[in-house]
Amino acid sequence: MNGTVRRTVRAFAPATVSNVGPGFDIMGFALHRPGDTVEAELTDVPGIEVAGITGDGGVLPRAAGSNAAAAAAASVFRAAAAPGGMRLTLHKGLPLQSGLGSSGASAAAGAFAANELLGRPFSPDELVPHGITGERAACGSAHADNVAPSILGGFVLIRSYQPLDLVRLPVPDGLFVAIVHPRCRVSTRQARGLVRNRSFGIQDIVSNTGNVAALVAALFQSDLPLLGRCIDDRLIEPIRAALIPGFADVKRAAMDGGALGCSISGSGPTVFALADSEPAAARAASAMREAFRQTAHIDADAWIGNVAALGARVVN
Amino acid sequence: MNGTVRRTVRAFAPATVSNVGPGFDIMGFALHRPGDTVEAELTDVPGIEVAGITGDGGVLPRAAGSNAAAAAAASVFRAAAAPGGMRLTLHKGLPLQSGLGSSGASAAAGAFAANELLGRPFSPDELVPHGITGERAACGSAHADNVAPSILGGFVLIRSYQPLDLVRLPVPDGLFVAIVHPRCRVSTRQARGLVRNRSFGIQDIVSNTGNVAALVAALFQSDLPLLGRCIDDRLIEPIRAALIPGFADVKRAAMDGGALGCSISGSGPTVFALADSEPAAARAASAMREAFRQTAHIDADAWIGNVAALGARVVN
Repeated sequence: MNGTVRRTVRAFAPATVSNVGPGFDIMGFALHRPGDTVEAELTDVPGIEVAGITGDGGVLPRAAGSNAAAAAAASVFRAAAAPGGMRLTLHKGLPLQSGLGSSGASAAAGAFAANELLGRPFSPDELVPHGITGERAACGSAHADNVAPSILGGFVLIRSYQPLDLVRLPVPDGLFVAIVHPRCRVSTRQARGLVRNRSFGIQDIVSNTGNVAALVAALFQSDLPLLGRCIDDRLIEPIRAALIPGFADVKRAAMDGGALGCSISGSGPTVFALADSEPAAARAASAMREAFRQTAHIDADAWIGNVAALGARVVN
Repeated sequence: MNGTVRRTVRAFAPATVSNVGPGFDIMGFALHRPGDTVEAELTDVPGIEVAGITGDGGVLPRAAGSNAAAAAAASVFRAAAAPGGMRLTLHKGLPLQSGLGSSGASAAAGAFAANELLGRPFSPDELVPHGITGERAACGSAHADNVAPSILGGFVLIRSYQPLDLVRLPVPDGLFVAIVHPRCRVSTRQARGLVRNRSFGIQDIVSNTGNVAALVAALFQSDLPLLGRCIDDRLIEPIRAALIPGFADVKRAAMDGGALGCSISGSGPTVFALADSEPAAARAASAMREAFRQTAHIDADAWIGNVAALGARVVN
């Protein structure tokens, strides 16, 4: 396929869990579903046109400059010095402001679609900065912990942003994830503002660095109990938990239900739990949904599965 | 040997590099030398007696309750509910307040010697809490990032202090370490006080967590260039560098000399550099010594070697 120029493409990019407990802004992993799909076609008119968006309830901007998928695609076109442009339709398959990397998935799908249409001038790793550009256009901040795993798949660590330095981490066999999305929203801007304005003491920093370092060791050693113990965030979770109705009960329900660990996905309100079997993940998901219902009177959607090895891709 | 009771023993425990850049209080590795040696004999009198100390210039306390080796040995005797006691002589082989884990090595040697004399009631992992007790007696704070690698050898991560949760990390072949100790002292209490009284912003925390996580990945992947990039501490080094005359020039000299990375060992003033060959480590050490001399007019001692797989041990 390399070098082939298509006229049209459908690209899918998955939802992602970022932060993963102690890894604020530096790690994330890809899910199999849900995800966003970008249908795109090459045009002779320079620039990116958003022909339509489905599944967003009319909320997302159609202006190419502030749409994550279009801005990411535009960044790819610019970098490739490609003549002409692209017309895209974005099908939102994942909920907005859910903590599942919604704008990251849109940006990933947009960048991936543009790269396919142009005959793959860039490797997946090289697409990540364009995805970041797309996400910045949509939500104002340039982070990579959603867009990198959404493009690359698997479990991705961002060692550094300046320069961008990504490290792929192994995913243990037998690791299952339960994702529970309560039907309410958390503004990423508000959630990030809560964090930006704080300062933190060394004791909690030591706890988080110990946990994030051991989390990486657990992935390499396929040590699931250790991995679970590492899902312990003393810095960000205590602040952001206040934005998620019933969070303490939901987390307790997940752990009582047999999860290895549980924390907030991205900036929430989605909560994720890790488990060492599919039935355990299902029990955790069920307990978490029930806790959202009982404690906060909020219905929640749930997904269960593995970490997805594959990120953004062409679909039919 | 297990179960054998000796009447006398000589135990050696090595110097250690703790913090290792971004891993404040959570990681350390063992050196082959220098180190402390404890000569010990069982006695019928309960309690630990410090018969003598050599190599400390008369500075260290002889009172068993505030001597790291004796306090660690006492903790082992208490935990084993052993009758009788132990008389020890501590031979300081490593400089005091150097940032090379001086009290940690003494505590490790004391705990190890006591365990040998009692027929090894405890595994090396189980000795670590006793070593921590010894170090707390000597310097007031209970940290494990020197004493754990001094007992266990290799590269050790402390995921958590409460409960104590240690993770052994692999050491890549071909990794060399240059250690340069300028002949001046930094008080651990003062160095820790500088850190305790600060609070830290999220941006530098993100940088350190990214680097510490990638450092662990680099060890598992034997990726020495990545390992070098991870020796980047935005939280503690900028504060403590002020306590080390000429630090900025010494670090620059190490990097210009071909080191992969360079930072403060423990709370300083010792500086360590990582390199991918013995000649590169030697060049870095030489450049660092020269920089200490030129910039700060301080002579410095240097050691070059690998991370030591073996920690505390019986010697003849």
